[in-house]
Amino acid sequence: MAIPEHLSLTIAKSELPRIVIIGGGFGGLKLAKGLKKTKAQVVLLDRNNFHTFQPLLYQVATAGLEPDSIAGPLRKSFEGNPNYFFRMVKVTGIDTDKNEIETTVGNLSYDYLVIASGSVTNYFGNEKIKKVLPLKRLVHALDLRSHILQNFEQAVLTKDEKKLEQMMNIVVVGGGPTGVEVCGALSELKKHILPRDYPDLDFSKMNIHLIEGTDRLLNGMSEASGQNSLRYMEKLGINVQLNTMVEEYEDDVVKLSSGSIESATVVWSAGVRGNVLSGINSTSVERSRLVVDEFNRVKGFDNVFAVGDVALMKSEEFPNGHPMLAPVAMQQGSHLSKNIKRHFQGKKMMPFKYFDKGSMATVGRNKAVVDMPGGVHVKGLLAWVIWMFIHILYLIGFRNKLIALNNWVWSYLTYDKGTRLIIRTFSRKNRKD
Amino acid sequence: MAIPEHLSLTIAKSELPRIVIIGGGFGGLKLAKGLKKTKAQVVLLDRNNFHTFQPLLYQVATAGLEPDSIAGPLRKSFEGNPNYFFRMVKVTGIDTDKNEIETTVGNLSYDYLVIASGSVTNYFGNEKIKKVLPLKRLVHALDLRSHILQNFEQAVLTKDEKKLEQMMNIVVVGGGPTGVEVCGALSELKKHILPRDYPDLDFSKMNIHLIEGTDRLLNGMSEASGQNSLRYMEKLGINVQLNTMVEEYEDDVVKLSSGSIESATVVWSAGVRGNVLSGINSTSVERSRLVVDEFNRVKGFDNVFAVGDVALMKSEEFPNGHPMLAPVAMQQGSHLSKNIKRHFQGKKMMPFKYFDKGSMATVGRNKAVVDMPGGVHVKGLLAWVIWMFIHILYLIGFRNKLIALNNWVWSYLTYDKGTRLIIRTFSRKNRKD
Repeated sequence: MAIPEHLSLTIAKSELPRIVIIGGGFGGLKLAKGLKKTKAQVVLLDRNNFHTFQPLLYQVATAGLEPDSIAGPLRKSFEGNPNYFFRMVKVTGIDTDKNEIETTVGNLSYDYLVIASGSVTNYFGNEKIKKVLPLKRLVHALDLRSHILQNFEQAVLTKDEKKLEQMMNIVVVGGGPTGVEVCGALSELKKHILPRDYPDLDFSKMNIHLIEGTDRLLNGMSEASGQNSLRYMEKLGINVQLNTMVEEYEDDVVKLSSGSIESATVVWSAGVRGNVLSGINSTSVERSRLVVDEFNRVKGFDNVFAVGDVALMKSEEFPNGHPMLAPVAMQQGSHLSKNIKRHFQGKKMMPFKYFDKGSMATVGRNKAVVDMPGGVHVKGLLAWVIWMFIHILYLIGFRNKLIALNNWVWSYLTYDKGTRLIIRTFSRKNRKD
Repeated sequence: MAIPEHLSLTIAKSELPRIVIIGGGFGGLKLAKGLKKTKAQVVLLDRNNFHTFQPLLYQVATAGLEPDSIAGPLRKSFEGNPNYFFRMVKVTGIDTDKNEIETTVGNLSYDYLVIASGSVTNYFGNEKIKKVLPLKRLVHALDLRSHILQNFEQAVLTKDEKKLEQMMNIVVVGGGPTGVEVCGALSELKKHILPRDYPDLDFSKMNIHLIEGTDRLLNGMSEASGQNSLRYMEKLGINVQLNTMVEEYEDDVVKLSSGSIESATVVWSAGVRGNVLSGINSTSVERSRLVVDEFNRVKGFDNVFAVGDVALMKSEEFPNGHPMLAPVAMQQGSHLSKNIKRHFQGKKMMPFKYFDKGSMATVGRNKAVVDMPGGVHVKGLLAWVIWMFIHILYLIGFRNKLIALNNWVWSYLTYDKGTRLIIRTFSRKNRKD
């Protein structure tokens, strides 16, 4: 969308200090909510008008949920507070000398800046994989859903055996939670939905491959959960290849370090990197993240902070920085709101301490793995119930909870997925990163 | 989407006669379902993989419902029947000499053909209104939703008074059910949602205009309902202009026969015309519809039928053809399935008789008008409850009913609309017809 000339990012300065937050993800939104009773003008900027509950993107991609279950309008969180401003703009850079951020519709000054710009898909600089499909934004999930369904519609029309093979095979790259969850959801589609929808196709020929570079799945979780998820994957008929790298993806053939797979659908969930905006001194950047101290203050600045995926906070427990996870972002956002309040009150800031509530991944119907604090590992139906409970609990608003729960109960009872709709056809030429 | 060469529309011919149905709308879907126990090979073709419940499109456009509430996968209706085939293809023409239909992926022969291609937006040949927004397909509804929300996001950023006026004004052209319902939903957004979401904007400056060419609203309904809906519109603060024609829409100014309005959003619900495919002899076409006899047989053919909006069936009661309404299409589809069965059994076909169950339009919260058979007109809360009951009843599947009801109860209780998400930005340059 071209930005017309008449637009500009002007917000009247009040007597209150202005806190500009870049990004309405888990960290930015939590921070903004936490600042509600602070004497400050709070400006939240995001290129979308909604917050995305990213852990459930894979369900949108696999026809389980519609966007309204996992996204909520950002402005809703800002209602009723005259010192709060939301602007849907794309931030293009930061000028720390002038204390200004730069956007496509002009600059805006700040007294305090919080960078909560999150992360973007990491292709590790590989130029030969331009046609893989990311799964990081809501639009990716909808594109992937269209792409998968379009392929089956085309598979019905093809007489070319090789093309058929390519359209029936799906390769998922990266054995983290997203990769594992996508594979689980795809195997459910393969088992319960697709054979009924496409009686002309032989689904014994549909193969789901999960490619992981290291020697185990779910690297962020316990050894036990990694092994349990691997066992589940195998039970569901997913071809897991560990210690395997993707070298190239051209002409619907994935070249791996161990061979090659014909596939028209390669989902890239191999990793993310910090979304560092231009203008920050390179001495403050390490491994694509902004180096912050224990108060989330960006190295070298007094009034610039960073929270969440983009922030690299090292500690004794996390010598390479905290993990890029939603709970870390939420806790940092919440903690920083308290520190900013303390700062305004002339009190000393408190160092951030991550409270690990555990982590989890779902693999499919009645199948999940959960690592709880204290080294307890749960799997199977109980883990799946915990997973569902926690996800419902953390969904943005009551309405989202209601709609998602409704969908899940429906799918569970009927083995049906209602949203297998190709509303916009998708071409990989138009991939958005 | 470019169609690769390896695709072709081949379906193995069985000993059974082949009935090809073009279009999975109300008429085509009802027909296909009605043929379930017929000894025939049934092939349904549609460019989408879903059926759209068009009467509720306006709710998707105004952030009330997500697509999954009003659309259902077509293949689901075909499950478990080995003689049924669905193909997602775009039909480009018909060759009645060869008994073949032509598509972008090749031709397909038929023994019997049923054209249920519905209708498309009618711009009445006016080339000067290229930037008006239609509301006939699901993608239109999503585009309109994005467009309206984008405008408010931009309105917050503009300092240009004229641009602001254009972004705040919405013009709806056509005072039929769609136009009236869109206006009603927009006025609810204006009253309950937008002022909370956009505290920077002065919504007393937001004007909703409804432009109608004739001297009344809801022309297809009773005089009483027309007047009641007009009264409701005025109560809701909508500027209704009757006897007014749109002449031109350029540079965000609508030129009317009575003056002009600055507006960046002009919704075109002024009418539809039959979607007649090329290849049918022009002697069978009248006023953009296919002339059919009382058995829905297209004039001049024994084995080509048409149902719904595209079919022009004249009768004593309807000398200019039956109205282009969902109930007519459904009843014709259902009736034709019975006639085809009778034909196969060597029995005489029965003439179609439209059973008018009444018509209705909703104007907003607790406000609707209903014409019941026998000249009974209902308005207000009772009409609104009837409207909701009937729409839930006719929604495609149980899942759609559940999700839509859920959304409606939620919106009713909270005055909230959850789907105000700009998931894909929309530019009018990319309008789809």
